[in-house]
Parts: sequence; C-alpha cells; structure tokens
Amino acid sequence: MPSTFGENLKISIYGESHSESIGVTVEGFPAGFPIDEEKLAAFMARRAPGRDKFSTPRKEADEVVFLSGITDGFTDGTKIHAVIYNQNRKPKDYSDISDTPRPGHADYTAKMKYGADYNATGGGHFSGRLTAPMCIAGGLCIQWLETKGITVGAHIASVHGIEDTRFDSVNITADELNSVKSKAFACIDDTAAEKMQDEILKAKAAGNSVGGSIECAVVGLPAGIGEHMFDGLENRISLVTFGIPAVKGIEFGAGFDVCDMYGSENNDEFYVNENGKIRTRTNNCGGILGGISNAMPIVFRVAIKPTPSISLTQNTVSLSKKENTTINIGGRHDPCIVQRAVPCVEAAAAIAITDLMLRKK
Amino acid sequence: MPSTFGENLKISIYGESHSESIGVTVEGFPAGFPIDEEKLAAFMARRAPGRDKFSTPRKEADEVVFLSGITDGFTDGTKIHAVIYNQNRKPKDYSDISDTPRPGHADYTAKMKYGADYNATGGGHFSGRLTAPMCIAGGLCIQWLETKGITVGAHIASVHGIEDTRFDSVNITADELNSVKSKAFACIDDTAAEKMQDEILKAKAAGNSVGGSIECAVVGLPAGIGEHMFDGLENRISLVTFGIPAVKGIEFGAGFDVCDMYGSENNDEFYVNENGKIRTRTNNCGGILGGISNAMPIVFRVAIKPTPSISLTQNTVSLSKKENTTINIGGRHDPCIVQRAVPCVEAAAAIAITDLMLRKK
Amino acid sequence: MPSTFGENLKISIYGESHSESIGVTVEGFPAGFPIDEEKLAAFMARRAPGRDKFSTPRKEADEVVFLSGITDGFTDGTKIHAVIYNQNRKPKDYSDISDTPRPGHADYTAKMKYGADYNATGGGHFSGRLTAPMCIAGGLCIQWLETKGITVGAHIASVHGIEDTRFDSVNITADELNSVKSKAFACIDDTAAEKMQDEILKAKAAGNSVGGSIECAVVGLPAGIGEHMFDGLENRISLVTFGIPAVKGIEFGAGFDVCDMYGSENNDEFYVNENGKIRTRTNNCGGILGGISNAMPIVFRVAIKPTPSISLTQNTVSLSKKENTTINIGGRHDPCIVQRAVPCVEAAAAIAITDLMLRKK
Amino acid sequence: MPSTFGENLKISIYGESHSESIGVTVEGFPAGFPIDEEKLAAFMARRAPGRDKFSTPRKEADEVVFLSGITDGFTDGTKIHAVIYNQNRKPKDYSDISDTPRPGHADYTAKMKYGADYNATGGGHFSGRLTAPMCIAGGLCIQWLETKGITVGAHIASVHGIEDTRFDSVNITADELNSVKSKAFACIDDTAAEKMQDEILKAKAAGNSVGGSIECAVVGLPAGIGEHMFDGLENRISLVTFGIPAVKGIEFGAGFDVCDMYGSENNDEFYVNENGKIRTRTNNCGGILGGISNAMPIVFRVAIKPTPSISLTQNTVSLSKKENTTINIGGRHDPCIVQRAVPCVEAAAAIAITDLMLRKK
Repeated sequence: MPSTFGENLKISIYGESHSESIGVTVEGFPAGFPIDEEKLAAFMARRAPGRDKFSTPRKEADEVVFLSGITDGFTDGTKIHAVIYNQNRKPKDYSDISDTPRPGHADYTAKMKYGADYNATGGGHFSGRLTAPMCIAGGLCIQWLETKGITVGAHIASVHGIEDTRFDSVNITADELNSVKSKAFACIDDTAAEKMQDEILKAKAAGNSVGGSIECAVVGLPAGIGEHMFDGLENRISLVTFGIPAVKGIEFGAGFDVCDMYGSENNDEFYVNENGKIRTRTNNCGGILGGISNAMPIVFRVAIKPTPSISLTQNTVSLSKKENTTINIGGRHDPCIVQRAVPCVEAAAAIAITDLMLRKK
Repeated sequence: MPSTFGENLKISIYGESHSESIGVTVEGFPAGFPIDEEKLAAFMARRAPGRDKFSTPRKEADEVVFLSGITDGFTDGTKIHAVIYNQNRKPKDYSDISDTPRPGHADYTAKMKYGADYNATGGGHFSGRLTAPMCIAGGLCIQWLETKGITVGAHIASVHGIEDTRFDSVNITADELNSVKSKAFACIDDTAAEKMQDEILKAKAAGNSVGGSIECAVVGLPAGIGEHMFDGLENRISLVTFGIPAVKGIEFGAGFDVCDMYGSENNDEFYVNENGKIRTRTNNCGGILGGISNAMPIVFRVAIKPTPSISLTQNTVSLSKKENTTINIGGRHDPCIVQRAVPCVEAAAAIAITDLMLRKK
Repeated sequence: MPSTFGENLKISIYGESHSESIGVTVEGFPAGFPIDEEKLAAFMARRAPGRDKFSTPRKEADEVVFLSGITDGFTDGTKIHAVIYNQNRKPKDYSDISDTPRPGHADYTAKMKYGADYNATGGGHFSGRLTAPMCIAGGLCIQWLETKGITVGAHIASVHGIEDTRFDSVNITADELNSVKSKAFACIDDTAAEKMQDEILKAKAAGNSVGGSIECAVVGLPAGIGEHMFDGLENRISLVTFGIPAVKGIEFGAGFDVCDMYGSENNDEFYVNENGKIRTRTNNCGGILGGISNAMPIVFRVAIKPTPSISLTQNTVSLSKKENTTINIGGRHDPCIVQRAVPCVEAAAAIAITDLMLRKK
Repeated sequence: MPSTFGENLKISIYGESHSESIGVTVEGFPAGFPIDEEKLAAFMARRAPGRDKFSTPRKEADEVVFLSGITDGFTDGTKIHAVIYNQNRKPKDYSDISDTPRPGHADYTAKMKYGADYNATGGGHFSGRLTAPMCIAGGLCIQWLETKGITVGAHIASVHGIEDTRFDSVNITADELNSVKSKAFACIDDTAAEKMQDEILKAKAAGNSVGGSIECAVVGLPAGIGEHMFDGLENRISLVTFGIPAVKGIEFGAGFDVCDMYGSENNDEFYVNENGKIRTRTNNCGGILGGISNAMPIVFRVAIKPTPSISLTQNTVSLSKKENTTINIGGRHDPCIVQRAVPCVEAAAAIAITDLMLRKK
C-alpha cells in the first residue's frame, strides 16, 4: 500500500493538501515511552513553511494533535494516531492546471493513472505537505532513538553548486549534528550558508528555483542492525526517503565516488581504537556492510530537485486539445525546498532504522 | 522478511553460496504465459562467472530447474519454484576470515548480528551468488514485459572513471538496448569497452579491483504505472536494486545533477509529438513524476563498488584477540563485477515494475 | 499488525474506548464511488447502544466524520480516513479492576502481555467499541458490493437456546436479508424474536447475561472469488470475524454438522437450473469449495458468548496479594450483545470479500 | 498471497499434487536450533497415507529433504527450504472431471476462477497433498515449542457421530497429548477408536465416506501470547487451520455451546492454585481472552467434512453441454481423512502460535 511503511513499526500516512486534516497512524511503537511534545513541535517547525524569506509565505500552523495512543504523556501501547488539521482550506483555483499539466509536477502522470476526472487540487496526495505527518512519525522515532544513544542529524550539503564541505563521515559527532538543528539555515559552515541563501534569493528574484543536496548521519547506532538482501539499511532508508517528493537520488558512504575507486582505496580497513572498540579508518561504506550497521556513522546523501513551481512561463500541452501551449503558475512558492527537506530526511532515516531495530534479533 | 519482495508479484529467494541449492519462488506471476527457457538461459549466462578473463574463473553451471508452477511450458497459475543446484560445494577453508573479518565484506557485521558462532562460509546469504535466483525472477518478468511492448536494458556506464557516454535518455530505443545484450562486454561504445577492459586487467595484475556504474533504461512503459509516496517507481526500484551486493548509490534521470540546476532547466517541458503523443523534450525526471511513469524512458544509474576481495594485504583485526592484524585473501576473484551486475540491474528493474503493473488500477 | 487487515483493501483501525476519537483508515477502496452517508449512518445505528432496553443505556452518538479521502461525496482514490469523536470521555473508576481482573475480560491477559502498569481503562483497545470503526469500513464495502449485485445480511440465529429457524441457506434472497435490517430486533421469525427478548430481559433482571449465534449470508457473489490455501473465503472471513470481541466459533455451510454426515449426504450435487445456470441442490459447503465461491449463497454462523460484564458477584483474584477475592462490576451493561453484533458480522464478511474481489484475477 | 502465512515466522508453501516436488520455505525460524530429523519423519508419517486400511492405499514416501537453511543439523539463520519429491507422478486420467466437476471438490470453482482451460489434474494446488509441506513447517515449530515447555497435541473427537469424550480442557497434560501421538488411531479412549474404525470400514464398504472432528490442545503456553483484534490467537489459528482442505468450522473453548449459556456460567473465574499460580476453574474461553493466552490450555475443535471422493454415482453437470449428467469417480480414496488430519491441525496451531511468540513484546 502506497502510504504505508514498515514491518515492526508500521506507519500509515493519509490526507491531501486540501483535505480537512492530514495525519499518521503509528503501530508497534514501544509502549510506556514519554513523548516530549515541545521537542516534537520544534522538530515540526524546522519543516514548516513561512518561517523566512527563502520559503513560501504560506503559513501552515502544523500543530500536532494526538487523537489516541498517548495517555498521560506516555505511549500506551496502542496505535498512535496524530493529526494536523488543515487551516485555510479554501481550494485554490486549479482549473488551469487541470488541462495544462505543470512541468515537473505529478499533474500529468496522476491523470494518466487515475483518469481524466482526476482533480489535481493542490497536488492531492502527491503534495509535499504530506511530509508533515512523516515528520511526526520520524520525530517520535528520533526521540526514542536518542534514549538509546543514537542521534540522527542532517545538514544542507549543497545548494545550486555551493557546498557545505565541513562534514567528516568518520568523526562526525552527535553534538555537531545537534548544533546544526538549532540554526535557521542548516549548514555547518555559516559562510557557505550565506552564499547558498544569496543563490536562493537570486533565483527567487528571477522567478526561478534551485536544487541542492542533503547529507544525513546517524551516530551511535550499534553494529548488527539491518538485514540482508531486501531489508538492508540501504534498501529501507531508500524506500522511505524516495517518499519525500523531489528526491531524485541517494548514495551511501562514498556513494557514486566508488565507481572511480580501486578496491584497496574503497575497502574500509578495520582497527581496534583506543577504547578497544573495532572501528574503520575510513567510512566509504557509510557504516553499512551487507545491509547491516558496523557501528561507524551511517552516512548518506540525497539529491533534491529544484522546486518545480516557478513563476517563469513554461511550455506544456493542453490535454483536451492535444496541442502545445504555455503555462504561468500563479501564487507564491518556495524558491528552494532543500532547507525544509532537512528534517524530512532525518525523519526518513529514523523511521527506517527504528523499524529495523524493533525486529527481534 | 529480508529475502522477500513484492505485493502482487511476490518473489522469495533462498539459499547460500554453499547450500545444496539456491532458488526462488515467484507468486502472482500471470498464468498461461509461455516461458522461453532458452532465452532465460541466455539471460542467466550474462550474469554467470567464468566466461572471460575479467571475471572469476570459478565455473558455475547456473542451470535453472523448475520444480513447480510450469506445466507444458506455460505458467499454470500456481507458485513458480525454480532452483539452481550448487555444483562444487566443497566448502573452502574460511577459518581465516572467521576471526579476521575481510574489509568491505559482511563478515564483521554478520558476526555482530548473529553472534560469534556465525560461520561465514563463503558469505552465506550475503553472497553475490544469490543474484542468480534474482535473475531467474527478473528474467521471467523481462519476458512478460516484452509481450507488453516494454524493453528493459542496461549498459556499463563507467568503469574506474572511463565512461560509455553514448546513451540518450530521451531517445534510447528497444533496439539499442537489445543490441548491447548480445555483446560480450555491455557497452554501447566499443572503444570505451576496450579501455574499460584494459583498466580491469591492469587492476587484476596489481591484485586489486575496480568499481563502476551501470545505466538502465525501460522503454515502452506506458504512462500511469507506479504509486505515490512509498510505492513510487523510484522507491520500489531502489528497494530491489540495493538487494544486489556492492550497490552504493542510485539516481534517476538527471540524478545528482539536479542539485546544481535551476527549476527552469530541470523541469521537463511537455509537447505533442508528431504522432500526437504527449512527450517531454528532456528527461531529467527519468520518466517518473510523483512516483508514476510519464511514458518517457525510465532511466536510472547505479554505483557499483570495487569487488572487496583483493589479493593485496589488508589491515584488519583479530576479533578474538581484539588487536590489529593483516589479512591476505586467497583464491581467485573478480577484479570487477560491474559487467556481471548488468543483468542483475535489469532484473531488479523488471521485478519492481512488474509488481507495480500487476496492481489493479 | 494487530489492527490492520487486508491486501488490496487495507483497513487500519485505531483508538480506545476512552481516547479522544476512534477511527479507521481504508486504503485501496475503489475511486469515484459515491458514498451514501445517510445509509452509512443507518448501518452504524444498528450497532449503536442505548437504542432499547436490551442494550446498555450508555448513549454513543456514533457520528462518522470523514477527514479525508472523500471529495464532493465521492471517494477520490486517496486513503479514506473516518473518525468518531468519543463523547462523555470521563474515565470511569477502573481502580478496582486494575488489581482484580474481571472474569471473561482481557484485563488479566493484557496485564500479562503489557506488564503490571497496563491500565485497563474501559478495556482499552480490547473494547467492543472498536467494532464501530470496523462497521464504518464494512458499511462502505456493503455499499460497494451492492452496486455489484451482492447483498450481505445477517440475522440472530439464536439467543440462549431459542432459535430463529426460518433461514434457507439454498434459497435465501437479497430481499429477505434486507427486510431483517429494518427490524428493531434482527430475526426473520418475529415470534422467536419475542421469546429471545423475554430471555434477555429475564437475564437482565437476574443481573446476568446471555449468549447467542448469528447467521450471515452473502447472496449474488459470482463464482470464482477467493483463493486457495490461506486466502480462501473461510480463512479470510474467519480472520476478520474473530476480530469482533465475544466470537468463540465460526462454521460455514453445514459447519459442525458435517462431522456426522456421509460424503453422499454432504456433497452438494450440481445441476443446471431453469435459467441455464449451474447451481447446487443443497448448500452444505456454504457456497465455498476450495476457498472459492460457487455462486450459491455464502453462509456462515458465528457463536457469540454472553457479555462477560454481569452484576452478580464473581470470584477472582487480587493480583498484588496473590489471593482469592471477589468482584462486583458496577455500571450498567448489555445483558446481551448478540443483536448489536449483527451488523458487525455483516461488516466482517463485507470487508473480507471486498478485499478478495479487488484482487486482480 | 494465498500460500504464504506469517509475519515473524513466514512460511510459504508451493507445489501441486503432480508437480516434480512440493515444498515449503520457512523464514524467521530461530537460528542455532538443532533439528531432529527422525522426530520430524515420525510426525510426517502420522499424516502419510497408505498406513492402514482406513486410508487410501496410495503410498507416498514423504521423505523430507532440506535444500538449505540447515547446516550440520542446526538451523543456520537463513531461510529454510524443504522439499518432498513427488514419486509416481504419472498423471492420472482426469479428462472426465475436466468437464464434469466432482461434487464437493474445487473442480468447478477453480474453473470459474482460472478459466475453462484450467486443468484440474489431481486437484492441483487445492490438493490435500499440500498439507505435507504444512506439516514440515509445523513439525519444526512443534520441536521448537517443546524446548519452551509447550506441547501441542490433538485427538479425534468424533467420527460420524461417535465421540471420544475423554478430554478435560482444564486438566489435560502434555503426557496425555503425547501418548495419543504414538497410537495408530489417535483417540484417547480405545473403545471409541474401535467403534469409529468400524464406522469408517462400513462407509468404505458402501463406497461412501464419513466426516468427524478433531480437538487440539496446547499446554504450557505462558500467559500474554497473542495480540488484540485481528491478530488474536483465535484469528491466527483459524487462518491457518482453514488452510487444511475439508475444514468447515472451528470453535474455541466452549465454542458454540456459549450460545446457550449465561454469563455467570461461561465466565471462567480466576483463582490462585496450590503453586501460587493464577488459573481458572473452568476453561470455557479455551485459554484465550482478548485474543491473548491466559496460561490455561489452548483448546479448539475443528469440523472435518467427509472425503468428497466417493465411489457412489453422483449427480453433476457437463460444463460444455450445460446439462445434467452423472459421475463415477474411479481410483481408491480415503473413506475418512479425520485420522490423517490430526497432525495437520497440530501443525496449524504450532505455526500460528510460533509466529505470535516470535513477535517482540
């Protein structure tokens, strides 16, 4: 089922950008766990739009309401159900795009799937809005993982070619990851952050948008988590991460750089560290061998495409007339969604890993 | 379950590199379909080792035996069960690696998962050998897709930095894809192929290995295949593809190049072609919008790491003594597995797409 | 996952008797289907308590609110999410039963599963209250099945030994099934209904409760629905039906009577009827052979135990003191729940059958 | 998927009565467990035909061959794959039944499902033969459960109205259950066994067959196993048990007798026994409250219909001519399959319970 994920932690997302509510049910989450709602709200806020000039001015009050599964602040072992009631539901005028599909959007493919009558009001269930319930589930997982000494954190690795290079996949720490979370723009290097923001504003001024990449690390994960073949860490993290609209690629550890390497360069040699722990000198495998964690940081990078909604006139077709035409997309949109996608990527990693950790060994 | 994939087409792989047999069961495959066993054997041969000097000299007679599900050459609607009986099962001497994990292999992580007694004879269920049953399932899917006018084909995009650039993600045809399949070395550009082979032999001579990348296309897939969120084409293809050992990254369409693009560059504009069909001028989305096919070729690239087994002495640890040591891996191994992984990538794409196509609209 | 059912129609129920809301998500339901909310409300009302003197006086306004998945009265192809907001949530005083488990309830087994801290407020997720969301999903399925000419209906077959015998498993019609639905007490034979009601009132007066059985039929189901082995109609209907608390047995067609039969009696002989259709003279198989429908009415009976909550003093134990004690359960409870379970059994059958019908043949 | 069961223990059965082999894969079974193959063979023998005059004289050498998953006699943590190679595969002449469906068999419904070309050679995947692989999986589970102090055992409760009444659902012990397993005819009361055998022979002489019932108990199961709603012990045991062809009903504890009871009679009162353990005086709930075990014996009964294959002439139809006709089924068949189904019912219970036990609490 398209909007359901997990075997031991089963999350199920529902809603559309303009339905009365969007939400998520989470089954299999450990019972008796104290939920820190304030911390969750802070996590949600990192994804929410309208916070600054780099994202859409639409205000979405993403207040999370728990309808069941939490008693007196603790998970009670039953299915957790959390919703966000959609404010400002006045359906926009989407009559235009109903016949002239927007380039880069799912308008056309949804019509081809669901039929001509499919009404693409606001992107329906393809909307990036549905990453909000994903973040609820992910936020809960992040809180649980923290109690196990596991930290999930990400930073903006690049925006339109400008890179944040201060990231060491061997030595990255929980503190470094957490310090990024409190920043308004999730870079490690603040100078890079400034340049990226300039780039976004330049694109915005031109009625255009830009893409970028996000790098995520999970530190503190013990060795032995993950399964072989289709249930490896790479498989499961990918499966969830591609559920974030705009993701077009994912790579683990050295990723696509391995294509140019010798085996002797790429193999991460083991050694016994000063605490008697077995670690590797390099981390080209991204902390994963045979689908299973090796106690080094899990590291992966995700490619985020430029927001498809731009103000510039674009070529498209009229579906009814079967002829070429153009489209101008009104409204105000994010010139870049990379910064908002950072907590979504963290959520994806946390969900996939929690599900794998809850498997009986 | 780790070695099971699919909702409507359910494949389940079993076996180990040194068990009596390896095999696959396939449930949900269309009934009444004529299986071309010769064609399947040809497909399996592309993956098999020992065919040339670029791969391991181990001979594996990967003969496929159907134990049930096929009657008089046709699928009979019941679960298909196919096995390959392992020849030459004499277990190698793995006593070395039992205590000194090989860098780049799952020896260490498997021990951490299954406990100290885990006996990594030949990699067990982490073995690349298990891509053979995956290819059986994939080979059946490819035959079925062909009857629907859909062709799956891949080429070696690069080996150790040398690229096969003759691939046009907009105009690639079934004929081009098929012509690569008959080649001994799966490049479109034969000059590039020669250079790659030199590179592999050079690594081999040095007791080393090299990585590379594979580019896969699916042409003829109608628009409307795939689902939103977690069941999109990207999610499902990734899930299966990371089941091939050695894959460290996957990207669709422009992939990681989108990070450096403007929205106006990346958006694929629609137009009506000379046959009145709706197509896009570019194919940066890799034929996928909102997880769903748009009738352009599905295009994705996969990063394959260098074979971790190399002859050079490598640093590692003794698990029992908790101290640093070195390892020399004996035996003869593939200096490059990129060429053998090509049909595996095709199989992965075919399995994921067939499963999605068999969903009721 | 405990509260999730289905492969092609996936329903997922959540909530507890005293949580803010209870609800259900339904994924895979046919798109573009007009929901008759009034009809659904009528269906829900048949399950609701407080309608007459035979059931608990607690009033539950089981108003169904659709939070997503329905647009302009039609299913829109996305996941349907429906909730019932719990009124009167003032948690009762369950401090008694926390230490002294009620006989016949899940108090003790839940403690043994979830630990001593488990707080059985109102039965939590074991509550019969959760059959309300099951009825929402089932009510939608019944509406869809009706458009296919398939009618699901049940009657009270017995209460405390008094039987409603006017049911012909060979010739039962949609009209007969529907006429029962409009009755206040779901018997075919009104005289039997009266006697049953007397029996219930007698038990009520004595502070006791009574059990009974429900017989359900599905008419109009074409031949060929269902799968072999674990996905037969019997398997799937049973799986859902035992999700109704209080069900202790299920039998199809002649059911347990087959134990005393000869093959020659039990085998349903085929014949060609006056319309040229193939039918059977008897219906001992309950319309199911090899798990698959044969176009005769699907017929099954369900055993419903007496409500475990009774006013009489009962023996039980103190968990903390590990000694024998007694319990008096306060509050007012249903002296019989058989009549309220009738629509739940219909819902269970409809859900199981719809899921099987939505499988691609 | 029809022939797949389980979440934590996933069993997948394949094969047909006349395919080269039938078999089962078992995923998730605990690793490092020593398999007693002799014990398994003894278990399989209880199901095998041709042992005495009460069952079909067909000899089936149900030798179990493990193709993978077992190393040096221990489960090695990978998927277990076990097969039985079918001997005597000479396909019988089924041309008769291809047009004239046998009453009580799946011939007709399979044709309606799979189309006119469906070739019902020997019942295909509807064959009772497929309970053999189910027994392999169940036999492994029974061995594992025994190491946890849990015993699964069943007896013939009735054949054609003659009952074996010596069964006490409160006090039944592992020894009593095990003593039945060594008997040629699985009754507790040998006098009842004799009468049943006479009844079977009488039916056999008349070219007829008889049905019966099986009662199964699981003793030693700790409290707290099972889940609420759709994953209760009743739901899961039913789901697997109806996978045995010929089962038409199942009831737990007092079963259908609860319909005639008062709550005060049916409720099982708790008490502290002489060992300080909490038990119930009666066992009307069959050891299950809210889907979860209460440490009393799990008790259920199953209705087995008379073998549909009988020698007597039966009325049926010609599918091609759409007219009434008769059929005589040649060959020699079981006059009763109740005795052979006993280990199958044990297997079903063991599989369902092991799957639930392997869930992480």
